[in-house]
Amino acid sequence: MFFASDNTSPVHPKVMEAVVRANTGYAMPYGNDPIMDEVRAAIRDRFEAPEAAVYLTATGTSANCTALACLAPPWSTIFCHTNAHIEEDECGAPEFYTGGAKLTLVGGDDARMDANALDHAISHTGRGGVHNIQCGAVSLTSPTENGAVYSVAQIEEIALIAKRYDLPLHMDGARFANALVATNASPAEMTWKAGVDAVTLGGTKNGLMGVEAVILFDAKHAWEFELRRKRAGHLFSKHRYLSAQMQTYLDGDLWLEMARHANAMAARLKDGLMQLEGAELLHPVEANSVFARWPRAAHKRAHDAGAKYYLWPFAQPLDGDPEELLSARMVCSWCTTEDDVDQFLSTLTP
Amino acid sequence: MFFASDNTSPVHPKVMEAVVRANTGYAMPYGNDPIMDEVRAAIRDRFEAPEAAVYLTATGTSANCTALACLAPPWSTIFCHTNAHIEEDECGAPEFYTGGAKLTLVGGDDARMDANALDHAISHTGRGGVHNIQCGAVSLTSPTENGAVYSVAQIEEIALIAKRYDLPLHMDGARFANALVATNASPAEMTWKAGVDAVTLGGTKNGLMGVEAVILFDAKHAWEFELRRKRAGHLFSKHRYLSAQMQTYLDGDLWLEMARHANAMAARLKDGLMQLEGAELLHPVEANSVFARWPRAAHKRAHDAGAKYYLWPFAQPLDGDPEELLSARMVCSWCTTEDDVDQFLSTLTP
Amino acid sequence: MFFASDNTSPVHPKVMEAVVRANTGYAMPYGNDPIMDEVRAAIRDRFEAPEAAVYLTATGTSANCTALACLAPPWSTIFCHTNAHIEEDECGAPEFYTGGAKLTLVGGDDARMDANALDHAISHTGRGGVHNIQCGAVSLTSPTENGAVYSVAQIEEIALIAKRYDLPLHMDGARFANALVATNASPAEMTWKAGVDAVTLGGTKNGLMGVEAVILFDAKHAWEFELRRKRAGHLFSKHRYLSAQMQTYLDGDLWLEMARHANAMAARLKDGLMQLEGAELLHPVEANSVFARWPRAAHKRAHDAGAKYYLWPFAQPLDGDPEELLSARMVCSWCTTEDDVDQFLSTLTP
Amino acid sequence: MFFASDNTSPVHPKVMEAVVRANTGYAMPYGNDPIMDEVRAAIRDRFEAPEAAVYLTATGTSANCTALACLAPPWSTIFCHTNAHIEEDECGAPEFYTGGAKLTLVGGDDARMDANALDHAISHTGRGGVHNIQCGAVSLTSPTENGAVYSVAQIEEIALIAKRYDLPLHMDGARFANALVATNASPAEMTWKAGVDAVTLGGTKNGLMGVEAVILFDAKHAWEFELRRKRAGHLFSKHRYLSAQMQTYLDGDLWLEMARHANAMAARLKDGLMQLEGAELLHPVEANSVFARWPRAAHKRAHDAGAKYYLWPFAQPLDGDPEELLSARMVCSWCTTEDDVDQFLSTLTP
Repeated sequence: MFFASDNTSPVHPKVMEAVVRANTGYAMPYGNDPIMDEVRAAIRDRFEAPEAAVYLTATGTSANCTALACLAPPWSTIFCHTNAHIEEDECGAPEFYTGGAKLTLVGGDDARMDANALDHAISHTGRGGVHNIQCGAVSLTSPTENGAVYSVAQIEEIALIAKRYDLPLHMDGARFANALVATNASPAEMTWKAGVDAVTLGGTKNGLMGVEAVILFDAKHAWEFELRRKRAGHLFSKHRYLSAQMQTYLDGDLWLEMARHANAMAARLKDGLMQLEGAELLHPVEANSVFARWPRAAHKRAHDAGAKYYLWPFAQPLDGDPEELLSARMVCSWCTTEDDVDQFLSTLTP
Repeated sequence: MFFASDNTSPVHPKVMEAVVRANTGYAMPYGNDPIMDEVRAAIRDRFEAPEAAVYLTATGTSANCTALACLAPPWSTIFCHTNAHIEEDECGAPEFYTGGAKLTLVGGDDARMDANALDHAISHTGRGGVHNIQCGAVSLTSPTENGAVYSVAQIEEIALIAKRYDLPLHMDGARFANALVATNASPAEMTWKAGVDAVTLGGTKNGLMGVEAVILFDAKHAWEFELRRKRAGHLFSKHRYLSAQMQTYLDGDLWLEMARHANAMAARLKDGLMQLEGAELLHPVEANSVFARWPRAAHKRAHDAGAKYYLWPFAQPLDGDPEELLSARMVCSWCTTEDDVDQFLSTLTP
Repeated sequence: MFFASDNTSPVHPKVMEAVVRANTGYAMPYGNDPIMDEVRAAIRDRFEAPEAAVYLTATGTSANCTALACLAPPWSTIFCHTNAHIEEDECGAPEFYTGGAKLTLVGGDDARMDANALDHAISHTGRGGVHNIQCGAVSLTSPTENGAVYSVAQIEEIALIAKRYDLPLHMDGARFANALVATNASPAEMTWKAGVDAVTLGGTKNGLMGVEAVILFDAKHAWEFELRRKRAGHLFSKHRYLSAQMQTYLDGDLWLEMARHANAMAARLKDGLMQLEGAELLHPVEANSVFARWPRAAHKRAHDAGAKYYLWPFAQPLDGDPEELLSARMVCSWCTTEDDVDQFLSTLTP
Repeated sequence: MFFASDNTSPVHPKVMEAVVRANTGYAMPYGNDPIMDEVRAAIRDRFEAPEAAVYLTATGTSANCTALACLAPPWSTIFCHTNAHIEEDECGAPEFYTGGAKLTLVGGDDARMDANALDHAISHTGRGGVHNIQCGAVSLTSPTENGAVYSVAQIEEIALIAKRYDLPLHMDGARFANALVATNASPAEMTWKAGVDAVTLGGTKNGLMGVEAVILFDAKHAWEFELRRKRAGHLFSKHRYLSAQMQTYLDGDLWLEMARHANAMAARLKDGLMQLEGAELLHPVEANSVFARWPRAAHKRAHDAGAKYYLWPFAQPLDGDPEELLSARMVCSWCTTEDDVDQFLSTLTP
C-alpha cells in the first residue's frame, strides 16, 4: 500500500540484471561505453530521429535544466504551467542552470497549460524592448503534475503557438512512457512530429535506478549540452551503468509495459475510490497518478492500516471533522499490484 | 592490461550485491532511506566526527563543487594546485557552482601545493581591497593528480596557512582511501584533526558505481549544501542505491582493502618499469598511479599487444625515434591483477 | 507638455552647479572623495541612522539589485508586487545579481502589495523543504509603479509580516522623496522605524543626473555590498560627481522641494483631467504620476498638439472609435510647470 | 603634484560645458537622445566602421565585461595578460558578467602579451574535450597596465593567433586615445583593420566624467549587448549626459589633444627622473604612465612635499635604508602641467 510516489519503487528486475551484467571487465568512461552506442541507436530508432543528439543524466532536474539552459538565454523567460516541476520542485534549478532566466507561469486545468493563456502570456512578454525579460522557451510536462496527459493535438496546439513566436518547445517527460501508452501515440508523434524540440525521456520514475535521456531533435545545441552537462557535474565516468539501464528499458518495450501497468493500477485505484461515499476526483486519471478527495475518517483508517500516500497539499490535519473531505495524491508504479490497490481500497470502508 | 583510469574498472562484487539487495520493496526517496542512516553513522564513526554533516552525490565534480560553493563566495578565489582536477578537468564547474569565483593556481612538485607558494599567493591576494578578488578557500587534492600523497604533516602545514588567513580548507579526496592506506593515518588524522573543513570521500574511482560522500566537519553550511545539491540536480530520488554502495564500501573496510590492492599493483608496476632500460619515473609512486617515461619502441610494443593507458600529455605520436622517451600515466584499481601488471611489463621488452 | 517620464527631465540647476563646482583639482576616486563624507553624514542625519552603511550608484537597477543580492541568496525568492520595477522593467537584473533567485509576484490594488496576499504567498513558499525555492526577502516600492504611496502604517504592516517569517525588507525608493512629502513622514519613520532594512533613495527621477543612494540600516552586509557593487562595475572612479549631486540634493531639502512640486503638478493635472467629460482615474494620485483614461478623441487632440505621454499599456491605437476610453500614464517632475499642465489640459477639450 | 591616477583628474572644461549645455528641456531616455545619434555617427566615422554597433556605459568595468560576456560563453576562458585590469582590478567582474568563464593568464614584458606565450596557452586549452574549459576570447589592453603601447604590428600578431583559433579579439582601451597618439595609427588601423572585434574606447581616464564607448565592429552581438547592459543596470535613463560627454570628446579631436598632452607630460616626467642619481625605469614610457624606481630618500622628500603617487606594489615602507630603490607608478593626465612635473622633480633632489 505504497502510493507516495513512483520514485519510491524499486528497480525492475530486468534492469537490475542488466546493471549486474554490465559489471564485467573494463569500459571506457563518460559515455564512450559500447552500450551507449546501442542506447543512441535505440532511441533514434524508437523516435524515428536518426539525427537526434541523445544524452543520459541521472536525475530529472539535470536533464530538464541542462536542456533548458541550451534553449533559453539568461535574459529570457521560460513559459510553463504554474505547477510545473521546474517551477515547484527543483529549488530554482532552471534559474541556476540558465544563469538567471525567469519562469513565466501559465494557468490551465489539470496542470496542462491553457493554449490561450500561453498565447496571451507570450504576446505580453518583452513588448517594452530591452527593459523587459525576453521570450525564451516553452516547457510542457506530460503527464502533467496532476496526472493529466496532453493529447498529440494538444501538444501540437502548444507547439504552434511556440513556433509562431519562434520559441523552442521543451517537454519534461519524467513520465513520458506513461503518456505514451495513455495516448497510443508513437514517440515521434508525441514529440518532434508535434513540434517538440527537446524532450526528457524519464526512466527513474518508471523502473530505473536513476537515468533520464535527453533527446535534442535538432542537434545544433549538442556540443553546448555536453559542455553544460560536464560543467554541472552530470557526466558520469562509469557511464556504462546508466547505459545498461536505458538499454534494457527500451529493449522489448519494457518501458511501455511498466508504464501500461502503472496506468492500469491507477485506473483500478480510481474506480475503487469512486465507489467510496463522498469521494471526488480532483483531476482526470489519465496516467499513473490519482488526485482525489474523500472523508477524513476514511483517510484515518487507511493511515492506521499503514497506507502510504501524501495528503496534497501536505498541511491537512488527520484529526478533525470525520466528514470533511481531504485531498490526496496517490501514485502507482510498475510494481504496484492489484492486491496493493484492493487492500488499500478495503481499508477505506469501515 | 587496462591502465587508462581507475574509473574504467567495474564495481566490486560486494558492492553490486549490496545494490541488488537494496532493490526490495519501497524506500523513502532523497536520502530518507534507512541505509543512509547507517552511512551517516558509519562515516561519523570512521572519521570520529559525530557532528559532521554527511551527504552523497554521484560524481566527484558535484561533490567538490557543491562543497566549494558553500565555502567560497562569488567574489573570492580558491587556491589550488595548477594541476588540480577542479582546475583542469571539470570544464569550469567550480566557477559555475560558486557563481563566478576564481581559482588561483599554486605550483609545487608532484601536484602537491608548495606551502611557501601558497602562503605567497594568499598574502598577495585582495590587498587592493574592493578592487581585487578576495581570498575564499584553499583546496588540496590527495592523492594528487600526479599520484603523490600529502603526509599528515604536509596537510597540517597547508591548513596552518589557511587558518592564518582565516580560510576554510577543502580536500578533494576522489582517491581518499588510496591516500589513507599510503599514510597509515586515520581518517580523522587525515582530515579534521589536520585542519580540513570539508572533504570529498571518493568511491567511484575505488570500486563503486558512482558515489562520493561529502563530509562537512562544521555543519554550519549543512542546509546550504542541501539546497545547492538539490538546485544542481544532484539530490537523487532513488537514493537508496547510492546509500547501499557507500554502506558496503565502508563495511568491513572494503574501501581500504581495495585501495591497498590498487596501491600495491602500482608499486609492482613501478618496480617492473624501473627494470626497463631507459625508463624514468616522473613522480614518486605513492598511491595507485604511475607516471613514467620510457622509450617509444617499448610503448609501441605495449600498444600493439593491446595495453591501454594514456600517453601524458596526450599529443605524443607513437611513430618516431624508437629511443625517444614518451611519458605516460598508468592507473591501477581494485581489480588490477598481478597478471595484468606482469603481462604488461612483459610486452615492454622485445 | 512632456509627461512621458520623470527621467526625461533635465537636472536641477543647483545640482548642475554643484557638479561644475566639484570639477576643480584632483580628488581621490571610488568614494574616497571628501564630498562623499558629507553625503554619508547627511543621509545618516536625515535618516537618524548613525550606523547605516551608505553607498551611491548611478542607476536604480544597480541600487536595487545589489542590495537585494545581499539580502536574498540564489536559492530564494523575493516577494514583490506583480508590477514592481524589479519584475517588469529590469530585464532580469535581480536574477542576474542574485545568481538566480526568483521573484514571487504578489497582487494588490494600485501596485501596493496586499498584506494578506503577501502573508499567504510567504506561508506557502518553501514548505516542501529542500525541493522548493526558499523565502528570501520582501521588496516594496513606494510610490508604487501606479503612483500610489504606502502609508507608514502600510509599510509597518508589510514589515510585520516579513519579520514574522524572518525576512529582510527592501524598499525600492526610486521616487522616495515623492512618497515622503506625500505622507509627511520623516525618512526614519518611512524606513527603519517601520521595519525597512535597506532602501534605495532615488535621485535620478527627481532632478539628479544619475545617482541613487543605497542605505543599509544594518551594516552587516556593508562589505559584501561594496564587493558586489565593484564586481558589477558600479563603483565609479570619478565618484565626486555622484557625491556632489547627492550632497546638493539633500542640502536645504532640495529633494523635498522638487518632489513636492512634482506631486503638486500631478494633483493639478488630475484635477483638470477630472473636469474632462468621460475621464476616469485608474489609480489614486498620491505622488507624481497620474493614471487615467479618457476618450480617444481627446487623446488625439493632445497628441496632435505635441503632448508627450505614454498610452498605458502601449499597444492602444490612436485611430478608432472617438468615444472609446484609452488609458494613459502621465508623470510630472520637478520641472513640470503649471503652464505645461494647463496647456496640456486645454488641448483635451475641442 | 598629483600622479596617483588619471582618474583623479577633473573633467575637461569643454566637456563640462557640454554637460551643462545638454541640461535643457526634456530628452528621451535610454540612448534615444539626439546627441547619441551624433555620437554613433562620430564614432563610426572616426573608426571608418559604418556598420559598427556603438554603446555607452559609465565605467570601464561594465564596458569591458558586457562586451566580453557577448564573446566568451560561460564554459570558456578569456586569454589576457597576467596584469590585465580585468584580471587584477575588477573583483571578478568578467566571471560575474560571463556567468563563470575563466581567465587564462599570459605573460609578456611590460604587460604586453607575448605572442608565443599566447599561442602556447591557446593551443594547450581544451584539448581534453568536454572535460576542459574551452577557448573563449582573447583580450588585450593598450596602453598596457604598465604603460606600454602595442604597435599596430603587435596587435596584428595577436589577432592573427586569435583568428587561427577562431577566437574573437577584445581590446580594453581604457586609455585608447593615449595609445592612438603614441602610435600615430588611425582608430581603424588600431582596431578592426588589425583584427580587433570589440573595443572599449575609454573616456573616463582622459578627461570625461564617466563614459566609455563600446564598439562592436561585427554587430551580430548588438542586441545581446543591449540586453546584457540593461540587465546589469548600466543602461542610463538620463543618457544624454553621457552622450554629451562623448560627443564633445570626439569633437575637434579633443580626445587626442588631451591624450597627447598626458603622454607628453609622462615623457617629461621620465626625462627628469632619469637625471636623478640611482633612478631606473621599470617599463618603457610609451603613453601617460611612468613606472620607475629610485632611492627611498628621494621618495621621502617628494612625499613630505605633498606629492601624490603610488608605490607599486603598495607595501613598500617609506622608512628604511635611504639608498634602497623603491618602485612607483606615476600617471599623468590631460590636466597635468609642466609646472606639476617640474615641481615634483625638484622635490626629489635635496
